Amino acid sequence: MDDLQAVSWLDGKVRLLDQTKLPEELILLEISDYRHIITSINNLTVRGAPAIGIAAAFGVVLAIWGADESDRADFLRNVNKAIDELKATRPTAKNLFWALEKMRTAMSKNLNRPLRQVKEAMLNEAKAILQDDIERCRKIGDFGQELLPFRCTVLTHCNAGALATGGHGTALGIVRSAIDKGKKIKVFVDETRPLLQGARLTTFELTEDDIDVTLITDNTAAYAMKKGLIDVVVVGADRIARNGDVANKIGTYGLSILAKEHKIPFIVAAPLSTFDPDLASGADIPIEERDGDEVRRIGSLQIAPEEVAVYNPAFDITPHNFISAIVSEKGIARFPTEEKLSEWLK
Amino acid sequence: MDDLQAVSWLDGKVRLLDQTKLPEELILLEISDYRHIITSINNLTVRGAPAIGIAAAFGVVLAIWGADESDRADFLRNVNKAIDELKATRPTAKNLFWALEKMRTAMSKNLNRPLRQVKEAMLNEAKAILQDDIERCRKIGDFGQELLPFRCTVLTHCNAGALATGGHGTALGIVRSAIDKGKKIKVFVDETRPLLQGARLTTFELTEDDIDVTLITDNTAAYAMKKGLIDVVVVGADRIARNGDVANKIGTYGLSILAKEHKIPFIVAAPLSTFDPDLASGADIPIEERDGDEVRRIGSLQIAPEEVAVYNPAFDITPHNFISAIVSEKGIARFPTEEKLSEWLK
Repeated sequence: MDDLQAVSWLDGKVRLLDQTKLPEELILLEISDYRHIITSINNLTVRGAPAIGIAAAFGVVLAIWGADESDRADFLRNVNKAIDELKATRPTAKNLFWALEKMRTAMSKNLNRPLRQVKEAMLNEAKAILQDDIERCRKIGDFGQELLPFRCTVLTHCNAGALATGGHGTALGIVRSAIDKGKKIKVFVDETRPLLQGARLTTFELTEDDIDVTLITDNTAAYAMKKGLIDVVVVGADRIARNGDVANKIGTYGLSILAKEHKIPFIVAAPLSTFDPDLASGADIPIEERDGDEVRRIGSLQIAPEEVAVYNPAFDITPHNFISAIVSEKGIARFPTEEKLSEWLK
Repeated sequence: MDDLQAVSWLDGKVRLLDQTKLPEELILLEISDYRHIITSINNLTVRGAPAIGIAAAFGVVLAIWGADESDRADFLRNVNKAIDELKATRPTAKNLFWALEKMRTAMSKNLNRPLRQVKEAMLNEAKAILQDDIERCRKIGDFGQELLPFRCTVLTHCNAGALATGGHGTALGIVRSAIDKGKKIKVFVDETRPLLQGARLTTFELTEDDIDVTLITDNTAAYAMKKGLIDVVVVGADRIARNGDVANKIGTYGLSILAKEHKIPFIVAAPLSTFDPDLASGADIPIEERDGDEVRRIGSLQIAPEEVAVYNPAFDITPHNFISAIVSEKGIARFPTEEKLSEWLK
């Protein structure tokens, strides 16, 4: 997967792997206008909380890369405008806001230097956010793999893999690190309706890495657990509140209930950029509702009457008491509580 | 919906509404060869436990409708062959075996009469199975509607409606009867992957009847419950064991766990033809596993890598202790137990 980065920087352009086209087509987009980054985040060309943050950071760089280096006021205006527009793309994932704040700080800290150097500093910050995310994922993997038995089957939901991050992945980072340690890990993956990130992306990246993967419908998870096919559930996160409540792809909350019922450990993997110390609990996390056509149609295929009402929240909230452990680059928080998580955020 | 019967008999032919084409196309097939009934059950042109039983009963009629009326041994052989082949189509729904046994009995009881009269008797039996099922559904509806508050939102899974039965429906029969009584009922329906019977069929038949319906992905059920959008869950059944364990469309078991977690009543509606007194518990019910391409593809659309492994059980088992009530044409069994259900089967 190492050559298939979700987001990278290449000679003044942002390269995105078009995740709406996988696994059928492998298309690399080269983007030089930050507004194209905005549409790419909106339409899920790039998705996954950490990857969205990385793409947005590079989007800010694009917004000023060709800018006039003599007009400081204009430069500042453009950066702030781009940050505001990028912020407005999607409401749930924390990493987007986190990365954009890092970019704003990188600008502020360097604003007394020549604009050419400010640009370079901001590019370096975006590159650092990307590189840093890969390292965080590797640490998450190394800590988290300790939670997996030597031989086990992991159920995951959506795609919290290399494609959702700078590389390696969060949930799938744990799987990869366990396999690197010689453990015998199989993966079951929920297809993850409506947008099928599990069926399209997780199967793709695990198959690329020769990891044993079995696809199931979201409906099959409970029965697979009952049949003893699942040893542990590992998922990513889009935002984690102070008390350890987790926003993640719709269906995650239900999965946590099923795991509890079957006494299967339920593990959440996320870098600290996903944590939101400003929010006391999951009740405060804004949940994006997306267009009903995502459910009524699959690609160009109409699967439900055109006029039928649809309720399509893109995320749900898993309460902290349904979570066996949260894994970050700082370590493992078993039975996460505000006290334990606050240690990481100091 | 009354003009849109899943199965009917028309001048020596069986008319099937092609449920693989709905809601895009409304195609009525006229079938005169029982082997075409077999393929129609296999490929889900006709589906839903009671409707499969009805179609199979008429299939037996087709197998002998044009038969030589002088060769009794050949006639008997043909009936038994057709019954055996129809039995082998799908393993889980009880109604199929129940209806075929009724047809075998209708033949045996009349076998001393002229074959022309045996044919008529068997046609009348198949027509009675159909008519009887509609009446059973109306009784289920009338009993079951008592369980619905005056104003409520019902979540249902798959299609246990008119299209799955002779008419009126089991789970949706309860909804229809409640509305007939003047109750204000809204329906949420899981799309029900992999074959999307909720998205395609339940939305279609409820919209036809001007019933307020909202489509959700299967992943959204837990979050909708948490948000207080669901008051009661009502589903159908494919087979019910002696102790009240229920086989139904994959995802039903998970839904029952979610309902329990949110303290939402979970109701199963089915005619007695779905009950299997020979099986002590759900562990004895055979679960059909279907082709992985049902998950890898939606219609002609490839949604996962062609070579990825798939686990695709078509049904799961909901334990009786997760069920608030089973409704049959005999009444309501609250917190179903073997003792209560055995009263119905006497």
